[in-house]
Amino acid sequence: MGRSSVGITLLGCGTVGGGVVNVLLKQRDLLKQRTGIDFVLKHVVVKSKEEYPPNAAELPMSLDANAAIDDDASDIIIELIGGAGVAFTFVERALKLGKPVVTANKALLAARGADLFKLAREKNTCIAFEASAGGGIPIIDVLQRGLVANRVDALLGIVNGTCNFILSQMSQKGWSYDQALKEAQAQGFAEANPTMDVSGRDSAQKLAILASLAFNVRIDEADIHLEGIDKLNAADIKFADELGYVVKLLAIAERAGIGDRVSGIEDAAKPDTRHPIPDAVSLRVHPTLVHKSDLLAQVSGSFNAISFFGHALGHALFYGRGAGRMPTASAVVSDVIGVALGTTLEQFRRLNVFFDQTPRATVQPFDGLRSRYYLRLTAKDQPGVLAQVTKVLGDQNISIASFVQHESAQGAGPVPLVLTTHDAREGAIQAALSQIDALDPITAPSVCLRIIDQPKEFAA
Amino acid sequence: MGRSSVGITLLGCGTVGGGVVNVLLKQRDLLKQRTGIDFVLKHVVVKSKEEYPPNAAELPMSLDANAAIDDDASDIIIELIGGAGVAFTFVERALKLGKPVVTANKALLAARGADLFKLAREKNTCIAFEASAGGGIPIIDVLQRGLVANRVDALLGIVNGTCNFILSQMSQKGWSYDQALKEAQAQGFAEANPTMDVSGRDSAQKLAILASLAFNVRIDEADIHLEGIDKLNAADIKFADELGYVVKLLAIAERAGIGDRVSGIEDAAKPDTRHPIPDAVSLRVHPTLVHKSDLLAQVSGSFNAISFFGHALGHALFYGRGAGRMPTASAVVSDVIGVALGTTLEQFRRLNVFFDQTPRATVQPFDGLRSRYYLRLTAKDQPGVLAQVTKVLGDQNISIASFVQHESAQGAGPVPLVLTTHDAREGAIQAALSQIDALDPITAPSVCLRIIDQPKEFAA
Repeated sequence: MGRSSVGITLLGCGTVGGGVVNVLLKQRDLLKQRTGIDFVLKHVVVKSKEEYPPNAAELPMSLDANAAIDDDASDIIIELIGGAGVAFTFVERALKLGKPVVTANKALLAARGADLFKLAREKNTCIAFEASAGGGIPIIDVLQRGLVANRVDALLGIVNGTCNFILSQMSQKGWSYDQALKEAQAQGFAEANPTMDVSGRDSAQKLAILASLAFNVRIDEADIHLEGIDKLNAADIKFADELGYVVKLLAIAERAGIGDRVSGIEDAAKPDTRHPIPDAVSLRVHPTLVHKSDLLAQVSGSFNAISFFGHALGHALFYGRGAGRMPTASAVVSDVIGVALGTTLEQFRRLNVFFDQTPRATVQPFDGLRSRYYLRLTAKDQPGVLAQVTKVLGDQNISIASFVQHESAQGAGPVPLVLTTHDAREGAIQAALSQIDALDPITAPSVCLRIIDQPKEFAA
Repeated sequence: MGRSSVGITLLGCGTVGGGVVNVLLKQRDLLKQRTGIDFVLKHVVVKSKEEYPPNAAELPMSLDANAAIDDDASDIIIELIGGAGVAFTFVERALKLGKPVVTANKALLAARGADLFKLAREKNTCIAFEASAGGGIPIIDVLQRGLVANRVDALLGIVNGTCNFILSQMSQKGWSYDQALKEAQAQGFAEANPTMDVSGRDSAQKLAILASLAFNVRIDEADIHLEGIDKLNAADIKFADELGYVVKLLAIAERAGIGDRVSGIEDAAKPDTRHPIPDAVSLRVHPTLVHKSDLLAQVSGSFNAISFFGHALGHALFYGRGAGRMPTASAVVSDVIGVALGTTLEQFRRLNVFFDQTPRATVQPFDGLRSRYYLRLTAKDQPGVLAQVTKVLGDQNISIASFVQHESAQGAGPVPLVLTTHDAREGAIQAALSQIDALDPITAPSVCLRIIDQPKEFAA
């Protein structure tokens, strides 16, 4: 933009909006000193006077989003309304006027991202969306800049603070899912209706954004295999702990066939014949057993972390607050600065990594996933059960890595049999489980969770 | 730059240079697809034919750096020679021609950074230096972009992989410093002369770069209190482990007075009256006891990690390989791309965070440091020792947090007394230690290490 003063219009002033107002007003001198730009809040738009923030009297409040967007003094539009309804209308209006938009709205990007990016491109403006995934962690900018020389092998992480808070409580306090959810709601980490979070949908929307940028393909939410945390049983968290694992809800995007995530770097100087766009990407969100020695296992409470595996860099990890008023404001305001400096537009114009330019992803069928597995069977305490179970697994070519059966009083009723497998195919595991669950001594549906191993060291 | 083809001249082709050649040649298609730019290697300059890389026959080798720099086909100069000698001459020559320079040379930046930045600015070009600190971790770009909305409270981390490898070996295998150093040398993680690394100087040079950008002040290497790992005793690593800590060489920059690193965010919308430039910065590199629950304690082997504390984001951490052929090449090539896209120049021109523009740092005298301490005294096993020691500490207003004395056979000779303190001032600790070491029952100089606590949760 090259201006020394930039007018900001903020659409929506809830939790994150309040944080953005705080940073823009309270750090105005710091931002001016660092960037040479005076960021001036021109309009703060809410739907009705009931939504006025406590300090509304000191702010340029407005109820007319269209007028605020159209105002010549509005150079950058920040959209913090959420959802794909009016937010879409307002973002579209701003872009049609050639005004850059900063948004934290992952639902909007998941639903209409490609259309909006296309429109922005036609109008020679841009959309900045750092706060749409990873909260305050600048992962979206890092994928476009610091990591851009890497052919990406995998990107996986904890991208939903609500689920991580609930799982941390279950793990640390031995609570049930329901107890932990109630605590999360009481502490403000979960909404009254927590479905978007606990079902894994929020994680899937974020993964779609991150993996699209990393793999240079367009990924829709529907491409992602989804399992939430709402069916998790405290017993499995306890058994996982005993085996040396922590259960985390991971969002995972892997170049299909990477499996153990070892990258081969050849010494010859001839070009890498592997195309940067992978043949297929494995995309999934599910509760995962993470080994305690993995940094991801140490990510507690509402924090997020994203592990990245690139052909040159190897393993890197980015950790920080994935939500909240001030951390999200940190990301939104950094976007505002990038837009004002002109660097965001330049990246948006020049890099071919955005949803509207890249081909649709080829998604690896979930059946074909290669992973290690944790299985918990519930069986009558009678002779021959193990023989029946291991025969089914053997027939499916599934190899057992460990087995746990705790001693119980004779005749005490069904007992849990816990086992982990070596690498197996999802299809084989599911076939084996439906056979196992049909066995007479098995009294309840078996539980199946996936294990992710510590990444092997990178041979660079 | 806006060109579709960009000519690259590489000065120096050792380990990292070889990695850069690898990425530029083997990922040429990937880079072109992502950026729209064809990066073409024009000259690979080494000092003599003895330094030719194995694949020299396929490369545009040259022995004439000046001619290579001057060549109109050389759009970007990558300097990987190291040191502040000829590297300075060549970088200066490139900048005088208005050609942007990408460098990994922290020693050059530490010695002549401000001069070179000034020259670049005069010639309307830029210096990119992502690989000069944190290796493949894109921390330098992140400080200028994703974190730029934060008033920084602290930046601290593990920035030397050699030291971290040695300390990991000592900790995991119970080895002495000498044993661990030999292993590091055998595995290629330490040089034949390891002084730059183990003395902490390499960490201090990196800290000078990172803290300058974070705090918007100019920091010289000499501003940084320096203690290396070469005097570390295996016994202290063992006692630290017993107390719940891991010993890491940390590079630490803190807003003086932050102490426990709690940031206060007021709710009122009035501007923050605290100036973005802190009154004083505490700057130090020393072995540090890090609690096992801190992510930094989990950073093993040659990995690096940097913890960041900002007023809006709170705690964030960036982890990855801090050195090595391909990880460093990842950073160098990302700089090449940023320069070619024009975004690096725009940031360099517009942001007021670089050494040549910012005021000299006000450095907190080391005496004034407020920290917790680990002390190991060596005393004759006789009555009254503890009374004498605790009197000295009490007189200096130093409060003991924990105390360990293992049982020993009577008359077995001097015994170690280990204690940790609550928050105390460095000056008081040093005064107490010189009194303690003068006590008759104390038979050897006492060991003093600093403890860094888990950051308190951020109240955003």
